[in-house]
Amino acid sequence: MRPDELTALGQQLRADAVRVSDRAGSGHPTSSMSAADIAAVLLAHHLRYDFDRPDHPANDRLVLSKGHASPLLYALYRAAGAVDEDELLTYRTLGSRLEGHPTPRLPWVDVATGSLGQGLPVAVGMALAGQRLDRLPYRVYVLSGDSEMAEGSVWEAVEHAAYEHLDNLTLVVDVNRLGQRGPTRHGHDLDAYARRLHAFGWHVVEVDGHDVEALDTAFAEARSTTGRPTAILARTRKGRGAEAAEDREGLHGKPLKDAEAVVAELGGVRHARVAVQAPPDGEPPAPAPGSVPPGSVAGLPRYEVGDTVATRTAYGHALEAVGSALGRVVALDAEVGDSTRTGFFAKAHPDRYVECYIAEQQMVAAAVGLAARGYVPYASTFAAFLTRAHDFVRMAAVSRAGVNLVGSHAGVAIGPDGPSQMGLEDLAMLRAVHGSTVLYPCDANQTARLVAAMAGLDGIRYLRTTRGDLPVLYGADEEFPVGGSKVLRRHDDDRVTLVAAGATVHEALKAADLLEREGVPVRVVDLYSVKPVDADTLREAAAQTGCLLTVEDHHPEGGIGDAVAEVFADGGPAPRTVRLAVRSMPGSATPEEQLHEAGIDADAIAAAVRLMVERVIA
Amino acid sequence: MRPDELTALGQQLRADAVRVSDRAGSGHPTSSMSAADIAAVLLAHHLRYDFDRPDHPANDRLVLSKGHASPLLYALYRAAGAVDEDELLTYRTLGSRLEGHPTPRLPWVDVATGSLGQGLPVAVGMALAGQRLDRLPYRVYVLSGDSEMAEGSVWEAVEHAAYEHLDNLTLVVDVNRLGQRGPTRHGHDLDAYARRLHAFGWHVVEVDGHDVEALDTAFAEARSTTGRPTAILARTRKGRGAEAAEDREGLHGKPLKDAEAVVAELGGVRHARVAVQAPPDGEPPAPAPGSVPPGSVAGLPRYEVGDTVATRTAYGHALEAVGSALGRVVALDAEVGDSTRTGFFAKAHPDRYVECYIAEQQMVAAAVGLAARGYVPYASTFAAFLTRAHDFVRMAAVSRAGVNLVGSHAGVAIGPDGPSQMGLEDLAMLRAVHGSTVLYPCDANQTARLVAAMAGLDGIRYLRTTRGDLPVLYGADEEFPVGGSKVLRRHDDDRVTLVAAGATVHEALKAADLLEREGVPVRVVDLYSVKPVDADTLREAAAQTGCLLTVEDHHPEGGIGDAVAEVFADGGPAPRTVRLAVRSMPGSATPEEQLHEAGIDADAIAAAVRLMVERVIA
Repeated sequence: MRPDELTALGQQLRADAVRVSDRAGSGHPTSSMSAADIAAVLLAHHLRYDFDRPDHPANDRLVLSKGHASPLLYALYRAAGAVDEDELLTYRTLGSRLEGHPTPRLPWVDVATGSLGQGLPVAVGMALAGQRLDRLPYRVYVLSGDSEMAEGSVWEAVEHAAYEHLDNLTLVVDVNRLGQRGPTRHGHDLDAYARRLHAFGWHVVEVDGHDVEALDTAFAEARSTTGRPTAILARTRKGRGAEAAEDREGLHGKPLKDAEAVVAELGGVRHARVAVQAPPDGEPPAPAPGSVPPGSVAGLPRYEVGDTVATRTAYGHALEAVGSALGRVVALDAEVGDSTRTGFFAKAHPDRYVECYIAEQQMVAAAVGLAARGYVPYASTFAAFLTRAHDFVRMAAVSRAGVNLVGSHAGVAIGPDGPSQMGLEDLAMLRAVHGSTVLYPCDANQTARLVAAMAGLDGIRYLRTTRGDLPVLYGADEEFPVGGSKVLRRHDDDRVTLVAAGATVHEALKAADLLEREGVPVRVVDLYSVKPVDADTLREAAAQTGCLLTVEDHHPEGGIGDAVAEVFADGGPAPRTVRLAVRSMPGSATPEEQLHEAGIDADAIAAAVRLMVERVIA
Repeated sequence: MRPDELTALGQQLRADAVRVSDRAGSGHPTSSMSAADIAAVLLAHHLRYDFDRPDHPANDRLVLSKGHASPLLYALYRAAGAVDEDELLTYRTLGSRLEGHPTPRLPWVDVATGSLGQGLPVAVGMALAGQRLDRLPYRVYVLSGDSEMAEGSVWEAVEHAAYEHLDNLTLVVDVNRLGQRGPTRHGHDLDAYARRLHAFGWHVVEVDGHDVEALDTAFAEARSTTGRPTAILARTRKGRGAEAAEDREGLHGKPLKDAEAVVAELGGVRHARVAVQAPPDGEPPAPAPGSVPPGSVAGLPRYEVGDTVATRTAYGHALEAVGSALGRVVALDAEVGDSTRTGFFAKAHPDRYVECYIAEQQMVAAAVGLAARGYVPYASTFAAFLTRAHDFVRMAAVSRAGVNLVGSHAGVAIGPDGPSQMGLEDLAMLRAVHGSTVLYPCDANQTARLVAAMAGLDGIRYLRTTRGDLPVLYGADEEFPVGGSKVLRRHDDDRVTLVAAGATVHEALKAADLLEREGVPVRVVDLYSVKPVDADTLREAAAQTGCLLTVEDHHPEGGIGDAVAEVFADGGPAPRTVRLAVRSMPGSATPEEQLHEAGIDADAIAAAVRLMVERVIA
């Protein structure tokens, strides 16, 4: 396109943003307008994308990190012929694919955005996939706001991208100097951003973001830069093109007044259609998944009943085996691979191991980006430190991403390291994620089977592992369907059902033995699938024993006690229940002392059962 | 001290670290040894601290961000005479104050550490208090590891500290080049860190971290640098002083072999006692809290019953009033003050408003730092984006910090912006924090009272606010004790109890009216205090109506349904329950459509009640 055509295209995008926000009565026209020339130049001259084949492996990727500027993205889709005028006008209405912030309900959106500072981190995962794994020539473009450069996650990603020499990655920062409530920290000081990005090893181009020729040159420079990612810092004006709005405070996230006049000021509604460049043909397709179906047991480690093995260790070996069976499996860790045991995978499959160093947000973001490119990521760190990436996990669910998260060092059972290292909130966090799966094995064979099963599930799947050695309870051929449970003790006259998972299964078994000797038979359920939960077995246990006691190495809120309670929130009669959980603030102690202090060891379970039984009799 | 004495002091600290870890059978001697000379020089020549008066307002602060090096800190306390030999040897044992990672069980520890990348962000809050609020001459020292420089939270803090010109802040990075599982990203490339810190506006000194004279000079340089914070990058060797361990991989987090010989190699057990410099006397004490006790209503906004006001707006006005009444109240926001309504406070009390830009981790960390200096912080952003700071909230509880968090834009009720902006996991996240308080008001007067009450509570207190206008239900003089609830509809023959909070209270009232017209009287409980929860009222309702229906604008896990279920996890008979919550992935729609689609509006409540009633009859 000629420069004047590019400029006209920018005006078209602006006018579209103004009118759809006006029609919706909400939205972010001014944030769209600042970036419209950037979008026009990218779409017309640089993006290589087949909108009819969003799954084309060589398509470039475009991530709108400033997701509130969704009107701009949808206007771009209209200009590309992917969205028609009628659909454009459904923006922000019930049932529309054109949501307030982009989600993968639209086939050209790989990942949801709208929580700022996430676009670049996720894009690093996509760029890693292209450069290091797929070896495909696609480029990854991120259009980001300037306010979101304050997010630490951006700097984790900046560091990671430079470290991995991702020259297929281009970040464009729309420096419009105005945030939600006023000027940003650095305003129009492009050099402030440039100094920082330079220091981290990026190539940086500063440009007038409304000069289409300068933008064109900047994108070309990014494409020809090798060995490092490029940031294009574009000086822009929020609300550009509408005199009453341009560079003015107080207009964030609001439709413009007198939208019709603004559209006229922008040159009216235009209908230019851009012939977007096709991705290169004849490129090798992405490698197919391994021939062994997910969940298959081929190569999984096998443990002898009675041996003692930490579930984290079984995880490490199982992950190595799953990695051998499935070529699309990638492991990520936040520099604790010695502890999480992803080190085994790293040694066996170094080409598919991504060391994220201590940057949990970047680790989860990279996993989401890899998942968007068809990989099966397993991202691991201490369960406690996964809280660091909570917002990324939440957004991964909105992205409909298939991601495996594995948290080690669960609960007080870790012993002397103390509360900072104990995952005591992770079940609550992961259960509350939409569509998640939460698994919590108590032995090595169970762990191995669940690690394999995870690969084939949808959404966010979480596995919780334990630091210390635990006895192997199950044979290596036992199966553990997701959504199931195991009844480990059962008598016709059980008085109470103990519901446990992970470390507390072993305490429950000890308590059951103790109680049986006292003439109080109890049932023991190993609730390894915390979400979805085995409602049938729990209902049967409730019907037959009348009393359920849950015991978990986790705070009382949102974990196993809650998972069991939810089963009975169906309006039917509910059993008596007691929750044993970690209610005090732990300090340092041995694992056994910790379980005792927290009141979740065999003695505490037995004592609670005695009370329940007395109470029912009374 | 002479250089040789400083060196000997460093050896003393090393030997102590080696022997306590050996005795405990766990711990991090090698990570302590790398930083021992830094600690020696700091303690002997630069720190001004009265160990007998840890509450002295002019004491310098020392934050051990690399909390796993706790043996070094405890050795330092022994050298300062604060901890004796007997206590030192209790390291990591049950009941000891000397936990695996430092916590405020020790009076000289202001904040817990052990989740890496948190020390500097929290220290920024402390330094802000000293420089901008207290105007006290104390300095804040942070001793950090090199691995943790990968955390984005560190760069949020680096940015914030430079922006606020915190020249009372000194960061020492112990660049020992080895992380948990091997070399760090930048190894011994001190320049890599220096370039980055320079670019963000810091003064940087590179130094041999085992040269006590060079360290001494560096600390002096930091103290004399004005207008910007200083980072001392210290090149060190992990395991320094033990030939078998020094600069070797595979020795992270493990006691050293043959500890006795290592102690001998380090010159044996020493007992040097350092005369630590006192803080300057005669300094003005920190300002006293305002004369109005927390929870007082003086100056709180008052609303007329029947008016419609968003609870976020009431929050903003109430916060402004609480700020007027209490001089120690500080408000922080992550650049969304227009939306959270902290803008009102910012305008009224600009000196006590901290703009954190879009950096939620830094916002919560600064709040924790301010709380450690006796301030009463209120940190606000969208409820959804508080997930960004989950690890900081978790650690704030370990720090026993008193922090108010306020999350706006709760739930699907926000309308068209879509799921990225909706807080749907925040109740689960905040309830699972140890010792937390979770409040969720449904009207403006209730909000105002709760905002005032929060100031006087311990621990993490969370207030959830709503975007849209809601009718005022309560008079301005109504009281809302934390741990209470309000029964809004009550009949002798209630068939079901509706338990709601926030937006769904209004839906429950509509449903109750609808059902009453159908001859089905129902009770309505406004559960504004989600944690602690009003067990008495819920038990009474259960006893009288037999059926409870919870309805919440939140995912089904960990929120109000769970809070109610926990009440009945006492082993007693439990009522029938049904949970209405957001089970689908929302898109864009109007607030009313969203509540309807999620099945949490009046129609859905009424339909569920009809089913419950039928079922009970059947």
